[in-house]
Amino acid sequence: MPVNLTSPVAAQLLPVAGVSLGVAEAGIKRADRKDVLVMQLSAGARVAGVFTTNRFCAAPVTVAKAHLAQADGIRALLVNTGNANAGTGEQGMADARASCAALAGLLGCKATQILPFSTGVIMEILPVAKIAAALPAAVANVKADNWYDAAQAIMTTDIVAKAISRQVIIDGVTITLTGIAKGSGMIHPNMATMLGYIATDAAISQPLLQQMVSAACDRSFNCITVDGDTSTNDALMLIATGKAALPEIASADSAAYAKLLAAVSEVATYLAQAIVRDGEGATKFITIQIEGGKDEAECKKIGYAIAHSPLVKTAFFASDPNLGRILAAIGYAGVTDLEVEKLRLYLDDVLVAENGGRAASYREADGQRVMQQSDITIRVVLARGTTHATLWTCDFSYDYVKINASYRS
Amino acid sequence: MPVNLTSPVAAQLLPVAGVSLGVAEAGIKRADRKDVLVMQLSAGARVAGVFTTNRFCAAPVTVAKAHLAQADGIRALLVNTGNANAGTGEQGMADARASCAALAGLLGCKATQILPFSTGVIMEILPVAKIAAALPAAVANVKADNWYDAAQAIMTTDIVAKAISRQVIIDGVTITLTGIAKGSGMIHPNMATMLGYIATDAAISQPLLQQMVSAACDRSFNCITVDGDTSTNDALMLIATGKAALPEIASADSAAYAKLLAAVSEVATYLAQAIVRDGEGATKFITIQIEGGKDEAECKKIGYAIAHSPLVKTAFFASDPNLGRILAAIGYAGVTDLEVEKLRLYLDDVLVAENGGRAASYREADGQRVMQQSDITIRVVLARGTTHATLWTCDFSYDYVKINASYRS
Repeated sequence: MPVNLTSPVAAQLLPVAGVSLGVAEAGIKRADRKDVLVMQLSAGARVAGVFTTNRFCAAPVTVAKAHLAQADGIRALLVNTGNANAGTGEQGMADARASCAALAGLLGCKATQILPFSTGVIMEILPVAKIAAALPAAVANVKADNWYDAAQAIMTTDIVAKAISRQVIIDGVTITLTGIAKGSGMIHPNMATMLGYIATDAAISQPLLQQMVSAACDRSFNCITVDGDTSTNDALMLIATGKAALPEIASADSAAYAKLLAAVSEVATYLAQAIVRDGEGATKFITIQIEGGKDEAECKKIGYAIAHSPLVKTAFFASDPNLGRILAAIGYAGVTDLEVEKLRLYLDDVLVAENGGRAASYREADGQRVMQQSDITIRVVLARGTTHATLWTCDFSYDYVKINASYRS
Repeated sequence: MPVNLTSPVAAQLLPVAGVSLGVAEAGIKRADRKDVLVMQLSAGARVAGVFTTNRFCAAPVTVAKAHLAQADGIRALLVNTGNANAGTGEQGMADARASCAALAGLLGCKATQILPFSTGVIMEILPVAKIAAALPAAVANVKADNWYDAAQAIMTTDIVAKAISRQVIIDGVTITLTGIAKGSGMIHPNMATMLGYIATDAAISQPLLQQMVSAACDRSFNCITVDGDTSTNDALMLIATGKAALPEIASADSAAYAKLLAAVSEVATYLAQAIVRDGEGATKFITIQIEGGKDEAECKKIGYAIAHSPLVKTAFFASDPNLGRILAAIGYAGVTDLEVEKLRLYLDDVLVAENGGRAASYREADGQRVMQQSDITIRVVLARGTTHATLWTCDFSYDYVKINASYRS
């Protein structure tokens, strides 16, 4: 079960002026399930995004990037689950474009004004005809207060839907943000995907929108890991409709930019953490704080070495304070001039190690007490600089193996 | 159970002139178990080694490196299981030196002529008194045909002992090699360790011996991975006693050097593969061959991305030909200019993917057939250069989690 994460309440998800959402059942992988989402945008809305760095990126990722670069003005986003349209070669590209064309026909816009997203099984051909057949129903279903259904429609192996709204007052104007995401459910039968969509009614220039989504992603989605596998389809999209009565944000030095970035980052961080809390088989949510590093790169290196260590992750699953495993992971992280005698390791408020070994004050009972918690912070003070980094991950349980070892049939 | 690996036969392990081995019970972690090994070397024997790169390296690693650098002539190796003497700070250094001194007293040599090795639980103080008390029995047990008992004594969570002998004729002289190793059993209650010891009766200069052990390690122990965790205590030692009637090998360009390196590499490769076959919870032995790369670094990058992917490893456990997961791992390996349309992916002899997607000739039944095997080769042809690399790994099973999530009590 998800770690300290409950389903969003539909009534608490706020419409964002200029965005309407419709869902439908295309029967891509199974029947009786909403598996297609259309997010329709008002004219003049701006969209920017961050995409997977995987060289085997899926066809919809390539097409979405190309359509964004075209700068025709994006009028809708189209998301399907059940099939990732990845590892599908030229046919996959044609299929992603055909899906966009089908929706463009219904909305009366150009295919290049649609951004396609897919998640699900990879190396299987996208059933474009099924999707096209479901699009009229999705378009007919389009409405502003449909974020909850949208969050549900993009789920694959997520146990709970992920959605949140925030409001922030900028220059006296109330700005609304609503975001949804789906998690790294890399299950039966597929490599799946992390998808996130955040919309706001603020107006912001296109270059600043891109800068903002990159910055927000760096401090949220780029700080989480479940198993270290980077999907072929990952995407985080930020939509700014400009429908609020606030002048366009045109400078990164403005207070308005800083406020909006903070709000976008807050929404993105909630969604990113929710993905970890609902990680496959997760029973613990682990915050990894690396402090006192020379630069962010070495902090993240050490943080990810801890976060990716199967030995560390299984020890947390077992609530076993086998904390030497954390020291070992710090040691092999690849920071070649690290002086291990100088660092200190804490588990929440408990000092575990210093001077190259177990702290004199450390008592196993204290470590055990913290390990029993469902939310735990690993804190490493490197004492060699002033930079810090924070990552979030989960433990590694029987269920992770069970879920990912399931047959695809 | 180990994958296609059976216990060595004691009678097939050949003594190496100049090496005698003795084991004893020190009761370090539990009673009724041989947990101390003394390898006594004849005067004039040379020793070279490769050690863990982990910055949190254990005290015995630091001491062994210092003693090797002293170049007093190594007269014995001392190995204990049950405690890794890692993460133990200054006390650990003193304890490692004290263990050497205790053995040196019995053998009538200097403490700096002893190399110490420890494996077992980390962040706990080494029980030096117990080890010292057991040393007289170990020394009394010392004999030339004791390799089988030695292989057993260094086991921690290994299910079967790992040992092999080879003979090679160089310039008409029969040269003998015998090696033992213990595996990456990172279990209850510890971070454990990979230790390997190979002895030969050939004579070889000290610099060439060091060059040889590094070269052999690069193509054996450095090509295996179970879970990506690099231990604090890993070591591979190569001993050359010079007792055979063959002149000292003094040139790396000689045929004798090449022949001996080939034999050492064969022994090291057997031992390294044996560690993977006996990997924790392993049910499949997977060979990963990356061909046609621009350089070895990129081949290894891609190979390790595949080998470390929990998604790939769990799919192999399930015998599920969910091969898109391999493509995804190739894609995120970090080879930024990789053109995925050019590469080909094979499972044994079955062409799975080409042209950026599933091969037209691929049938799921063929993939399924290969996945059922216990020995499987993943072959990736990058088609961008002439370099290749081979790695060995195992799958990821329920038992891995079970073993590593066990409490230490």
